[in-house]
Amino acid sequence: MARVFNFSAGPATLPQAVVQRVKEELQDWQGCGLSVMEMSHRGKEFTEIAAKAENDIRNILQIPDSYRVLFLQGGASAQFAMVPLNLLANRRIASYVCTGSWSEKAINEAKRFCDINIVANSANCDHQGIPDVAQWSYDSDSAYLHYTSNETIGGVEFPFIPESNGIPLVSDMSSNIFSRSLDVNKFGLIYAGAQKNMGIAGITLVIVRDDLLQEPRGDIPSTFDYRKHAANNSMFNTPPTFNWYVMGLVFDWIREIGGLEVMERLNQEKADTLYQAIDSSSFYSNPVMPAYRSRMNVPFILADTGLDSKFLLEARVSGMVELKGHRSVGGMRASIYNAMPMDGVNVLVEFMQEFERRYG
Amino acid sequence: MARVFNFSAGPATLPQAVVQRVKEELQDWQGCGLSVMEMSHRGKEFTEIAAKAENDIRNILQIPDSYRVLFLQGGASAQFAMVPLNLLANRRIASYVCTGSWSEKAINEAKRFCDINIVANSANCDHQGIPDVAQWSYDSDSAYLHYTSNETIGGVEFPFIPESNGIPLVSDMSSNIFSRSLDVNKFGLIYAGAQKNMGIAGITLVIVRDDLLQEPRGDIPSTFDYRKHAANNSMFNTPPTFNWYVMGLVFDWIREIGGLEVMERLNQEKADTLYQAIDSSSFYSNPVMPAYRSRMNVPFILADTGLDSKFLLEARVSGMVELKGHRSVGGMRASIYNAMPMDGVNVLVEFMQEFERRYG
Repeated sequence: MARVFNFSAGPATLPQAVVQRVKEELQDWQGCGLSVMEMSHRGKEFTEIAAKAENDIRNILQIPDSYRVLFLQGGASAQFAMVPLNLLANRRIASYVCTGSWSEKAINEAKRFCDINIVANSANCDHQGIPDVAQWSYDSDSAYLHYTSNETIGGVEFPFIPESNGIPLVSDMSSNIFSRSLDVNKFGLIYAGAQKNMGIAGITLVIVRDDLLQEPRGDIPSTFDYRKHAANNSMFNTPPTFNWYVMGLVFDWIREIGGLEVMERLNQEKADTLYQAIDSSSFYSNPVMPAYRSRMNVPFILADTGLDSKFLLEARVSGMVELKGHRSVGGMRASIYNAMPMDGVNVLVEFMQEFERRYG
Repeated sequence: MARVFNFSAGPATLPQAVVQRVKEELQDWQGCGLSVMEMSHRGKEFTEIAAKAENDIRNILQIPDSYRVLFLQGGASAQFAMVPLNLLANRRIASYVCTGSWSEKAINEAKRFCDINIVANSANCDHQGIPDVAQWSYDSDSAYLHYTSNETIGGVEFPFIPESNGIPLVSDMSSNIFSRSLDVNKFGLIYAGAQKNMGIAGITLVIVRDDLLQEPRGDIPSTFDYRKHAANNSMFNTPPTFNWYVMGLVFDWIREIGGLEVMERLNQEKADTLYQAIDSSSFYSNPVMPAYRSRMNVPFILADTGLDSKFLLEARVSGMVELKGHRSVGGMRASIYNAMPMDGVNVLVEFMQEFERRYG
């Protein structure tokens, strides 16, 4: 079948150039006579692949030397526990901003290990925006302040980096990292699963400021101790080597595109095109306040929800898949991460307009 | 470069048929228009891939319905903690057999969470065998009895399943699972990282008897709770989808080979050939007692260690890589897992004999 446009929220579409390169290199990586899938993580070849990916990340995000870059397993869900277990040190409280489902998951997991101060909560506006920063209630005893930079289910994104008032700022950037320029200096720790903007599922990026690598609390599993991974260049145990390699290829692609500034512009264009199509119609709607709309995940509902399955079926026939909204909210959702080309958004918008003409 | 014979201890060589099939299917899995790397874990296609791999495991190992099959992240190192955290329940003691480096790692991690009863320890014979079973000191208060079925560094393998005297038997089978027939009924829990006999790094198989899925102790990270993974068909959070898929391809290959009985015979032939070459020479030696020699990892030393680097260099020129022994023991090590063809062993043996003729 011809390549489809895949609007999945993650695992998500990859740049075609990356898939092509994986295929080309699959049986014999750079003439070494074996596949990356088969390489010892301690061998010369993989050590090179691993170091290159880290260098790419450092260059693209301009990460200062005072930060460590870790490649871990377990996804953001493991980080929900790993962050408090490692960063609490002797404190009892951590602060969280709640802007939707993924914030809630992070909070519920952290609650198992400490008291939580909710700095701000958008629940009272149905998570359709971000609470006025002037009203945030800071707690200076907090070990850190956590926020979710993009909510994939609600489709709410921070258009700014929040002020943390001196508290180490921590962010789950799983769904919008590498989608725009970022001042890493403002953060204590950033984490992100790879399967949205960086590659394939099974590897998680952690960028952490050196001074936060302290004694974890209590007897935690060794694989949950950032220091052990940092001390072993993320090879405390066997890392997910192939996943790490694919990440490196995505960074090559980001550089070829022109880096984060170009990426940011392309992402804005895609999002503007799609939101404009939604807003200019009375058949489709998106509930999120315009200032906080996600450039990555665009949920929208049809005026007549009875048409949902027809919409999904006809979209599939037209070469677009995974447009179904998250089961917790229904409707539709188009995830348009870095790797979704403008073409995909154009085809979707044309389809939406045609569908509205026929059934609206 | 022509395909090399890769003797890495893991990540390790894959069946060529598997690498070939990954390549063929990479851009368009069974006509669905996208790569497995890009599939939503909740989509129809991946759900099918995931269920097929589980069915394969159940069929190949003849696993009873009273066991759950889990696909996790974190490797054996995460299991070193996950096993005690989940299986201790209200007990304070766990029993371990120590037969080498990996047993020691499992023990050291478990020590963080409970008292350890060492049932038997081969340290006094330099881990060159398995202590006489008649001398094992059981402790009936133990929550479980753990052993490492194959030590990849020392090259020591259990030729039998130990008697556990009613205590749930737990085994780290990372390096010899699927290498021979196995009576799963004798076990409470089996775990194995995929990167030796089942696929690529980044996914871990756990087979656990239902009745052992109990309340874990204390506040452990949610991703460390077997019950949460069991309740969600290993999709409590996003699983390493591509790694899961490759595992499934390896199972297809095992079936095509003729299943575990054929695999066992082939593995025995490879091991016999290599040990015979070592034993019939005065230039090469292996220190392990014959009854306990690993069929998977064959460490050997050269009479003159000054020739080590020449051996490795010339082996590489002859198309063989990763023969260097583990840094903790030195010498050489040939890992000859399922996917290493008899041809690879024959080429190695010929090379060893020729090397001995020239330098011995």
